[in-house]
Amino acid sequence: MNKTEKKWRWGAEIPRTDLACEGGTAAAEEETRTVEIGDSPVTVTRRRETDGGRSVTLSFGRITARGEGELTEMAETVADEMVAMAEAMTGRRIGGDLRVLVVGLGNRDMTPDAIGPGTVSRITVTRHLKAYDEALFGGLGCCELSALSPGVMGQTGMESGELVAAAVGLTTPHLVVAVDALAARSVERLSSTVQLSDWGIAPGAGIGNHRMPLTKESLGCPVLGVGVPTVVDSSTLVWDALMQGGMGEDDLPPELQRVLTEGRSFIVSPRDCDRMVELTCRMLAMALDMAFGVGEV
Amino acid sequence: MNKTEKKWRWGAEIPRTDLACEGGTAAAEEETRTVEIGDSPVTVTRRRETDGGRSVTLSFGRITARGEGELTEMAETVADEMVAMAEAMTGRRIGGDLRVLVVGLGNRDMTPDAIGPGTVSRITVTRHLKAYDEALFGGLGCCELSALSPGVMGQTGMESGELVAAAVGLTTPHLVVAVDALAARSVERLSSTVQLSDWGIAPGAGIGNHRMPLTKESLGCPVLGVGVPTVVDSSTLVWDALMQGGMGEDDLPPELQRVLTEGRSFIVSPRDCDRMVELTCRMLAMALDMAFGVGEV
Amino acid sequence: MNKTEKKWRWGAEIPRTDLACEGGTAAAEEETRTVEIGDSPVTVTRRRETDGGRSVTLSFGRITARGEGELTEMAETVADEMVAMAEAMTGRRIGGDLRVLVVGLGNRDMTPDAIGPGTVSRITVTRHLKAYDEALFGGLGCCELSALSPGVMGQTGMESGELVAAAVGLTTPHLVVAVDALAARSVERLSSTVQLSDWGIAPGAGIGNHRMPLTKESLGCPVLGVGVPTVVDSSTLVWDALMQGGMGEDDLPPELQRVLTEGRSFIVSPRDCDRMVELTCRMLAMALDMAFGVGEV
Amino acid sequence: MNKTEKKWRWGAEIPRTDLACEGGTAAAEEETRTVEIGDSPVTVTRRRETDGGRSVTLSFGRITARGEGELTEMAETVADEMVAMAEAMTGRRIGGDLRVLVVGLGNRDMTPDAIGPGTVSRITVTRHLKAYDEALFGGLGCCELSALSPGVMGQTGMESGELVAAAVGLTTPHLVVAVDALAARSVERLSSTVQLSDWGIAPGAGIGNHRMPLTKESLGCPVLGVGVPTVVDSSTLVWDALMQGGMGEDDLPPELQRVLTEGRSFIVSPRDCDRMVELTCRMLAMALDMAFGVGEV
Repeated sequence: MNKTEKKWRWGAEIPRTDLACEGGTAAAEEETRTVEIGDSPVTVTRRRETDGGRSVTLSFGRITARGEGELTEMAETVADEMVAMAEAMTGRRIGGDLRVLVVGLGNRDMTPDAIGPGTVSRITVTRHLKAYDEALFGGLGCCELSALSPGVMGQTGMESGELVAAAVGLTTPHLVVAVDALAARSVERLSSTVQLSDWGIAPGAGIGNHRMPLTKESLGCPVLGVGVPTVVDSSTLVWDALMQGGMGEDDLPPELQRVLTEGRSFIVSPRDCDRMVELTCRMLAMALDMAFGVGEV
Repeated sequence: MNKTEKKWRWGAEIPRTDLACEGGTAAAEEETRTVEIGDSPVTVTRRRETDGGRSVTLSFGRITARGEGELTEMAETVADEMVAMAEAMTGRRIGGDLRVLVVGLGNRDMTPDAIGPGTVSRITVTRHLKAYDEALFGGLGCCELSALSPGVMGQTGMESGELVAAAVGLTTPHLVVAVDALAARSVERLSSTVQLSDWGIAPGAGIGNHRMPLTKESLGCPVLGVGVPTVVDSSTLVWDALMQGGMGEDDLPPELQRVLTEGRSFIVSPRDCDRMVELTCRMLAMALDMAFGVGEV
Repeated sequence: MNKTEKKWRWGAEIPRTDLACEGGTAAAEEETRTVEIGDSPVTVTRRRETDGGRSVTLSFGRITARGEGELTEMAETVADEMVAMAEAMTGRRIGGDLRVLVVGLGNRDMTPDAIGPGTVSRITVTRHLKAYDEALFGGLGCCELSALSPGVMGQTGMESGELVAAAVGLTTPHLVVAVDALAARSVERLSSTVQLSDWGIAPGAGIGNHRMPLTKESLGCPVLGVGVPTVVDSSTLVWDALMQGGMGEDDLPPELQRVLTEGRSFIVSPRDCDRMVELTCRMLAMALDMAFGVGEV
Repeated sequence: MNKTEKKWRWGAEIPRTDLACEGGTAAAEEETRTVEIGDSPVTVTRRRETDGGRSVTLSFGRITARGEGELTEMAETVADEMVAMAEAMTGRRIGGDLRVLVVGLGNRDMTPDAIGPGTVSRITVTRHLKAYDEALFGGLGCCELSALSPGVMGQTGMESGELVAAAVGLTTPHLVVAVDALAARSVERLSSTVQLSDWGIAPGAGIGNHRMPLTKESLGCPVLGVGVPTVVDSSTLVWDALMQGGMGEDDLPPELQRVLTEGRSFIVSPRDCDRMVELTCRMLAMALDMAFGVGEV
C-alpha cells in the first residue's frame, strides 16, 4: 500500500520511494498547517489516501541546520501528531491502561540505517515498573511502554518481523510503533522529514533488510509507522539525472539498464549523516517519551 | 541448582558465587586434565554434581596475560568441550540438521556485563542461509545457527528470559547456548575461567538483571550455559576479608550487617576489565563458530 | 595537592579518595547553599583549602533517582559555578575571545571510566567555525570551544597528559576543562556528586590510567577539573569495613595486608552504573555547552 | 600528487577518485603478481608514478564474499607489502629500534568513514611497554608502536592533521602509517581493494573531513598511506552514467550541472557496508600487528 509498484519494461522498479508524498498518487484528502519553530517554519501535512490510509508528513528542513534548542519544540510537534494518530488507531486514550510496544527496525552498525535502534536506545521504558512497582507506575501517568530493537537478519538469522511478532505475543500491546529509516526519491528529503502512517512499515522499506511487512494484518494490532528518509537508492538518483538530462526510457543503452537494475545494492546518503541520525534519534526519542512515556511536555 | 542457598541469620545470602567449583559442595565425580597452550597450562575439569548436573570448568589464568596468538588454541579447547556437551545433551550429531540458538544475556552498555552481547555480536549466524540459499548452506557443513541478545529489563521493559522463550518458539532449536557474565566468590577467578554447564543459567546470575531461569524446564529444550566470572559482589569481598581478619558471624556489629546486606548493589571488577571482556568475547565467538558455525578449526 | 598522602606502616595508601570533601583536611573556608530542584534539594559547597586551592562540590543525591526533566536544571546549576570559576581563574569574561579546550580523560570502553569521553562526545565544538565562518561564529556569542578525548595508554601507547599538552600547544586555550571519573571513599558518593576544582586533575585519579598531573604547572594554562566519583577502590571498601568491625591497623594479619595492598587492581561500582554514567555525561555536556558553547540556558 | 586535478568548464572536479590505478595517468612502471588465497586469486600491483611516487594496490574481490578463514592470509599478504615499503621508505629494518605511529583518520560514527578508527581500535600498541617494562618489550621483537584516532573537525574543533603533527612531535616516529577511507570512481572497487602509497594521504581524501595533507612535507617523516575505497561521490556516479548514456559534457543542461556540482555532499556506499568495514578493519589491524607489532605471522 502506498508504495510505487511501477515496473519498467526491463523489469526494474525505478524510481523508488517509501514516502507517500513522493509516490505520485493524488491524495483523497490533504491538509497542511504551519508551525513556527526557531527561524524557519515546519509544515505538517495530513493526508488520506484513496485506499483509506492516513499519514502525517512533518517537514523540518535540514535538522542539522537547526539549533539544539529547537529539538524539544520539534519533538512536541511530532508527539502531538503521534498522540492523535494513536488515539484514532486504537480507539483509546493515552494512559496507564494503554500498552505500547516501540520497535526500532534496522541495523545499529550502519549509520543511515540506525534510526530505529538509535531511537529505541534513548527512550525510557515503563512496562516492568507496572509489574514490579505499581504505585510508582501509577504516579507516572504514562502508558505501559516496552521496546525492542530486533536487529537484522545477518546478525540474528531471524526475520526481524518474526521477532517483533513474538514480542507482540509477549506484551499484547494495543499499539505497535515501528521506527525505521526510509528511502526517498529526492536527496532534498533526506534528514528533513518525518512520516507517520497508520499502515505500518512495508516490506523492503529503507535499506531493505526486512522482508515481512509490519502491519495490522501481520501483527494483529495497529501499527503506527514512524519513518525518516535517510537514503536514496543509487539507481533512483541516476534515473532522475538521466530523465533530467533529456534521456527517455527508450533511449537507455543496455549497459545503463544493467547499472540501474543493480543500483539497489548501493545507497546514497549525506556526508554528514552521522550528525543527522543522532539529532533525529534524540528528537524522536523525546517525542515518544512525551507521547507515551515519562517525557515532560 | 548448584547455587549457594545459604542464608545467614540476618537474612543475607553471603558469600555468593555462580561457579560450581566454588560452591562448597563436593562433586559426585570429578576429572581434571591439562592442555598446554603457550607458556602456561590450561586445566579442564569435568564435574558431575550429586543431582546429576554436569559442568566443565576451563581455567586459563588471566586472559590478558596471554598473547593474542593463544586465543585460537583456547577457543579450540572450549569448542571441543562444547561439542561433547552439545552432543550428549541433544543426543544428536553436530551438522546441518542441528538447530542451535545462541543467547547473549546481559547489558552491552555495562562493561563487565557485556560478555553475552559482545560474544553474540561477533558470531556468524547461518539460519537464514538455510532458508534463502540451501545449496550454499549445505556446502558450509555447519549447524543452523541463530542468535539473540535480548537486552535487559531496564532497556526493553521485558524479562529477557521471556524474549528468549519467544525466540525459542520461533526457531525451535535442539539446543540453546546461553552466554552470560557470572559472579565469582574470589577475585582471582575473574577473567580466567569459563564454565560450561548442562543446567543452563540460574535466575539472578552475574550482575543479576534476569529473574527467570534459562533451563530445560523453562524453555523446553536443553540449555548449555556458558558462564564467565567477571564480577564479585562487594558484600562477598568484604565478608571474606572479615572472616580472614578473624571476625565471626556473631561478632558483626549491626552497621556492618547492613553494609553486607546492601552490598549486592555494588560490584567489584578488575581495573582492566574492558580488555578482559573484549578478549573473552572474541575467544568465545571463535569457539562457538568452530563448534556450531562456520569457524575453521 | 588536596590528595590523601597518608601511607600506612606496611606501605599502602588506604583509604583513598579524590574528593576534597572526603580528604579529612579541614577547609580554610567553606560555604554551603541549597538549590531546590525537583523534589529534593541540591547542596552546593564552595571550599577554600589551606593551600589556596578552591573547589565547588555539588551534591545531587542519586542521579538515577531524579527524573529526566531535572537534568536541565542540574546542568544550569553546574554551568553557573563553572562560569564563576572560569572567570576567576582566567581573569576574563566568557565570550568569543575566550579559548576553552575541554578534555575527556579515561577509557570509553570501560563504563565507570567513560565520564570524560562520554561528555566530550556530546558537546558541540565551535573553534573551527571561528576559522571557517567568522560571521556565523560571531552570531553564536560563545567561546572558541575545542575538545579532545586522548584515550588511555593501553590504546595509544602515549601518556594522555602528553597528548593534552600537545593539544594545548595547538589551540593555545585560556582555560583547559578536564573531565574525569574519580575515586571516592564512600559508595554513597557514587553517582551523586560533581566536584569542580581549580587545581586540575591529580596523577592517578579515578581508575588511574594517567600518570601525569593536568595542572597549571604541567600545561601552562589554568585547568578547571570536573570530577565525578564513579568508583571506590576495593581496598578502601574492605579497609573501611574492617575499621567499622573494630579491627585496628595493628591487628591486620599479613594476608589481609596483602589483600588491601593489591586491592587497587579492583574497583567497586554500582550495578546500574551504565545508566548513572549516561545521565551524568548528558548533564555535564549540557552544562559545558551552557557555560562555554552554544547551549541555551 | 596522484590525484585527478581535472576541472570541467563549469568548475566541478568530476569524476573524482583517490586511487592511483583509476587516475587515468599511465604509470612509469607497473608490475603485477597473483597470490592464491581461498578460491579466488588476489592481484598485487606495484606501481611507480612518473613523479616517482610508489604504490601497491591489492585487489581481493569483495571481502564479504570471502570466508573468515581467509582474513589471516589476506593480512599476511598486506603485511609483507607494508614491511617492504616501510623498510624502503625509512632505510631501516623492522625491529625494536623502529618507531611507528599509526593514525586512523575519519569518523568512527559514520560507517563508511570508520576504516581508520576501526583499525586503530583493534591494534595492540607497544610504545608504553618500552618505557615501563623494557625487558618485556625487548622479548616481543616488535617495533615501538603507538596509535591515534584524531577524530574529525566537527567533533574536536581541530584539524585532524594538526593533531597528528602534534603526536608526531610527541613520539618522533620514523614512519607514520595513515589509515583512511578513500573515494573510488567505480562502485566495483568498493570493499575489494587496499592501496598502499608512499606519498601519504591527500587533503580531502575519502569522505573529505581533513583539509591538511598528511605527507613527508607536512609531518617531517615518511607517511605510508593505507587507503580503502568505501565510497563513490554521487556526482561521479551520475557523471559516469550520463557519459555511458551518450551525453557529452556540452550537452548538460544547467540544472544537471548544478546537481553534479552539489553531488559531493552525498556519498554512495554498499548496502552491506557495515560488514565490509568490520572485516576490512579486522584484516588491516592483523596486518599492522604482523608488520610492526605483536601479531604472529
